[in-house]
Amino acid sequence: MKPVHVGLIGCGTVGTGVARLLIEHGHMIEQRTGVPIVLKYVADLDKDRDRGLHFAPGVFVDDAWQIINDPQVDIVIEMIGGVTLAKELIASAIRKGKHVVTANKALLATQGNDLFRQAATAGVDLAFEASVGGCMPVIKSLRESLVGNQIQSMVGILNGTCNYILSKITEEGLPFATALSEAQVQGYAEADPTLDIEGLDAAHKLAILTALAYGMHINFEEIYIEGISAITPLDIQFAHDFGYCIKLLAISKNRGNAIEARVHPAMVPLDNILSNVSGSLNAITISGHAVQDLFLSGYGAGMMPTASAVISDIADIARNMRFGAPGRVPAMAYQPDQIRPIPVMPVTDIVTHYYIRFAVQDRPGVLAAIAGILGDNDISIKSVQQKGRKSNGHVPIVMLTHHAREADVRKALTEIGRLDTVGPAPVLIRIEDDIQED
Amino acid sequence: MKPVHVGLIGCGTVGTGVARLLIEHGHMIEQRTGVPIVLKYVADLDKDRDRGLHFAPGVFVDDAWQIINDPQVDIVIEMIGGVTLAKELIASAIRKGKHVVTANKALLATQGNDLFRQAATAGVDLAFEASVGGCMPVIKSLRESLVGNQIQSMVGILNGTCNYILSKITEEGLPFATALSEAQVQGYAEADPTLDIEGLDAAHKLAILTALAYGMHINFEEIYIEGISAITPLDIQFAHDFGYCIKLLAISKNRGNAIEARVHPAMVPLDNILSNVSGSLNAITISGHAVQDLFLSGYGAGMMPTASAVISDIADIARNMRFGAPGRVPAMAYQPDQIRPIPVMPVTDIVTHYYIRFAVQDRPGVLAAIAGILGDNDISIKSVQQKGRKSNGHVPIVMLTHHAREADVRKALTEIGRLDTVGPAPVLIRIEDDIQED
Repeated sequence: MKPVHVGLIGCGTVGTGVARLLIEHGHMIEQRTGVPIVLKYVADLDKDRDRGLHFAPGVFVDDAWQIINDPQVDIVIEMIGGVTLAKELIASAIRKGKHVVTANKALLATQGNDLFRQAATAGVDLAFEASVGGCMPVIKSLRESLVGNQIQSMVGILNGTCNYILSKITEEGLPFATALSEAQVQGYAEADPTLDIEGLDAAHKLAILTALAYGMHINFEEIYIEGISAITPLDIQFAHDFGYCIKLLAISKNRGNAIEARVHPAMVPLDNILSNVSGSLNAITISGHAVQDLFLSGYGAGMMPTASAVISDIADIARNMRFGAPGRVPAMAYQPDQIRPIPVMPVTDIVTHYYIRFAVQDRPGVLAAIAGILGDNDISIKSVQQKGRKSNGHVPIVMLTHHAREADVRKALTEIGRLDTVGPAPVLIRIEDDIQED
Repeated sequence: MKPVHVGLIGCGTVGTGVARLLIEHGHMIEQRTGVPIVLKYVADLDKDRDRGLHFAPGVFVDDAWQIINDPQVDIVIEMIGGVTLAKELIASAIRKGKHVVTANKALLATQGNDLFRQAATAGVDLAFEASVGGCMPVIKSLRESLVGNQIQSMVGILNGTCNYILSKITEEGLPFATALSEAQVQGYAEADPTLDIEGLDAAHKLAILTALAYGMHINFEEIYIEGISAITPLDIQFAHDFGYCIKLLAISKNRGNAIEARVHPAMVPLDNILSNVSGSLNAITISGHAVQDLFLSGYGAGMMPTASAVISDIADIARNMRFGAPGRVPAMAYQPDQIRPIPVMPVTDIVTHYYIRFAVQDRPGVLAAIAGILGDNDISIKSVQQKGRKSNGHVPIVMLTHHAREADVRKALTEIGRLDTVGPAPVLIRIEDDIQED
């Protein structure tokens, strides 16, 4: 069988994992695919780092363009991250008729529509299983396994850093800043954790999944994003008392003529399987009209789990090459000419349950005033509790609402904020509670 | 695009779901695959049953052979179940160069080696995603997503009937027979439930997965099988006190030169995600050297979840036909000439933790005698508790062992059974406890 030649650009953590699997397990991969896969090049600027791998002479290069320009290279693996250079390399590879594998969600979420169009025109595969959920086959499931399903919703834990931090706060009662520092020490958070903790990374992934699920263009800019830095041990404790834990969720729902797409901390019922996903794991529940709920969980980051997903893409492309079948499965799940524009709803239009914590003065009439304003805004209260102790002259009051429209909730909170008896900045956490409809 | 013609043989529950998806969602499936899929025939002996579907004239036939003999039919969907006729139909379809989709695990577990060989020789696809785990993409994950992984183990809940019954016993304290009756009333168990409750169905599925995971022939006869009919509310309660629930597990482990493959009730730690899989759900944890643990869960039976998996197979084959790529992914994960014989270990050679419940006379020296025999057989005790109340002159003593060899445990139980002070038939339940190694 004619071998497939692969060039790897970027040999950091995941790139090293990919090289290792190709070098150490190439025989097994060939036993399965029937195609020998040759790692012809590994390009990285850092020559001296010990990767625990022995490359044959000529394999390790410092110039990525050597890979792009070698006509023998069939598949380019982009593992450098970032947007500008990565896009340039991928677009050049596509123009030269090479297939591409990437795990670069930031790139695909922002430039994917353009790149997928170029790949389709050139008749090459652009594969990206590792961009969402690491080793979880969520892209393959949406594109292939669920092909007979109208996707109704996806609810995922797609950022291991946030999940690790929230688990730490939950299990050890640490304040956010301490939990973040621990995550950094343990290698679960970057030195600059902004992309993760502010929810952008999860939103990049949600943008990709949402487009795949509903047959629409990638629409990252329309996703509502809220990070986890305001989550306190107090709210996690109160959530627990009500039967919930708090997770950073990526949520996408098919509302017929529009899509809900949002990333924010949310309360998850303790008896929902997502509440069992702790530490740096990822997970997703995909609901389709035929399957009902399909649940996947696995490591969403890390050297070998992510490399495993990259290898599955390389193998898919190698199989396509063997049979002359590039484009056999369209990159974005739907045939390129079938992708439609579907609007993303503004977050103010969503309807869900809310947890609201007010700091109020401990005197008669306060609750009546708050409840009155909520009622005037069509928000009905499911449960109210005065929780915990007085601090700074205020006591916490926690309310759970029935289904309410986000615009109404925001308007009510603004009005309530004007009351003299209510402290500043109530805490608002959405509840993801489809199991317990009321 | 040239349409693909499908003939469905057997229009019972799942067959009806398949027909419904093809009729009602054919457009969406074409938007994704790029191939029109035409349901040319539906064969069933029962013409009068109301399936809620309108078939065009000539589609519904009562003779399965009409489908096999029509040269225009590209894909035959075998949904009649059973072994003899199903095998004859599938083998004939293969000989005529047709691709085949089936969900028939009993057939594949016992005759699969032969059928897969025939399909490979004929150059047609024989697809079976729906045979294991219903809507969970476990076959596709093993064949494609985990292609870079040495599979280390699989631990699954693969029979929804047993899981439903065990959940009922756990949640409501019902005796087995009552829980089984309720499952029958609710439609979760057949009138003759033997295949399910005796573990054969789960073992059929495990036989298929084991072959796929390790690149070996299907070896159903070698699997150790024990059903759930001896499980009592008492043992479930005691298990809970120790931090476990009881599930019917299908377990397959790569031990290097041999494979462990067994189906039996087992104790699962309550903090393991498998313990959250209740009711008629299925789930599996697949461990690979790169991914670590990948967890899937979804409905393993029922009309639409199973039909969804059948549709994914039809779509895969349609895509292969479009590109002239049948056999692109080998049916049994490895290229046919790479499948090796790997022996299955006798269950007496496995090493695990055990829960043992004895009924003993409540007098001094009994525990010492039991402990002595266990010690003489290299079995060390992790925990002993005298639990519950006296009945028939005996009190229950429950022991958890450290790692022990099954042969040693069986020998010790025989010796203990000869003691005058110990009642007959101790209860032995294996513990699946890799998380809490000691």
